[in-house]
Amino acid sequence: MLRPTEFSLIDTIALLSRTPAAVNALLSGLPEIWARSNEGNDTWSAFDIVGHLICGERTDWMPRVRLILETGEARPFEPFDRFAQIKENEGKSLEELLNEFGRVRTENLVSLRLLNLQKEDLARQGKHPAFGTVTLAQLLATWAVHDLTHMHQISRVMAYQYREAVGPWSAYLGVLQCDGHSAS
Amino acid sequence: MLRPTEFSLIDTIALLSRTPAAVNALLSGLPEIWARSNEGNDTWSAFDIVGHLICGERTDWMPRVRLILETGEARPFEPFDRFAQIKENEGKSLEELLNEFGRVRTENLVSLRLLNLQKEDLARQGKHPAFGTVTLAQLLATWAVHDLTHMHQISRVMAYQYREAVGPWSAYLGVLQCDGHSAS
Repeated sequence: MLRPTEFSLIDTIALLSRTPAAVNALLSGLPEIWARSNEGNDTWSAFDIVGHLICGERTDWMPRVRLILETGEARPFEPFDRFAQIKENEGKSLEELLNEFGRVRTENLVSLRLLNLQKEDLARQGKHPAFGTVTLAQLLATWAVHDLTHMHQISRVMAYQYREAVGPWSAYLGVLQCDGHSAS
Repeated sequence: MLRPTEFSLIDTIALLSRTPAAVNALLSGLPEIWARSNEGNDTWSAFDIVGHLICGERTDWMPRVRLILETGEARPFEPFDRFAQIKENEGKSLEELLNEFGRVRTENLVSLRLLNLQKEDLARQGKHPAFGTVTLAQLLATWAVHDLTHMHQISRVMAYQYREAVGPWSAYLGVLQCDGHSAS
């Protein structure tokens, strides 16, 4: 087993700053069958997922960073509304969402850098509404892995559309065996 | 359950043409902890996965397309060597691999378009060494879903590096529950 990597602010920002361009390169101009199809019922399409990433930028990550720095554990975070984007993005185009994600992420990373966080800041604690004490470093690491979990989901949702088109190859394609692990 | 999407050559090429830019936007210039770390033992890093995608371009997808068109089921495909890239890419930089993947993919899509495949061509059959008869449409769909399976894998391998850094949030991050489904 490989040793887990310790949190690094520079490495985390390196990842966070690349996600919008990666998602944009994959999805921009892509036919609707890839971008607007989901996995059935109330699941999300790639379009919905980009909307969810925008919501996180607006209401979750930086507001929680500021809450930890300003009040510590005194006030728990607002719960993340995982369905807010469904209403908000009705009628918008995928290109609009992709541009918006790039814009709000850039703004948030500017704000994050301006905080000039030091090692001792990263150990500061806040209160998560479901599982209690967390550190600022854990919050920032989660921001990055949340990007990865949704890139993982986008690739799975897109692959799902071709689950029959690939014929017998489906047995070889790991993404088609992925059930989302009950957590997107 | 959503109806599966029927194979479309245009939609497949739309996806195939975007993968190199998406992988490049995510990985280019990224610190080594993200790009060169794997999931332990003989698993693959993002670097190794890009190497594997290049191998597929060289030895798998278009050679198999041509074999179907030229000989049908008379001769089975060469098995895909899933480990060829490990030796081949020693000493290369990630940037070299990313550029190479973009180049070989572009060349292959030019060749694919020049074939000017018609509906009846897409139904032509070839022979897979493990599971027998497959169609040209299934091969092309698999090429696209193979891209997605490896984007799914890249996001998982990267997330794995922060599996402890995220603290209690790991329960909420689907990508950290993904075991690769025995097929990357």
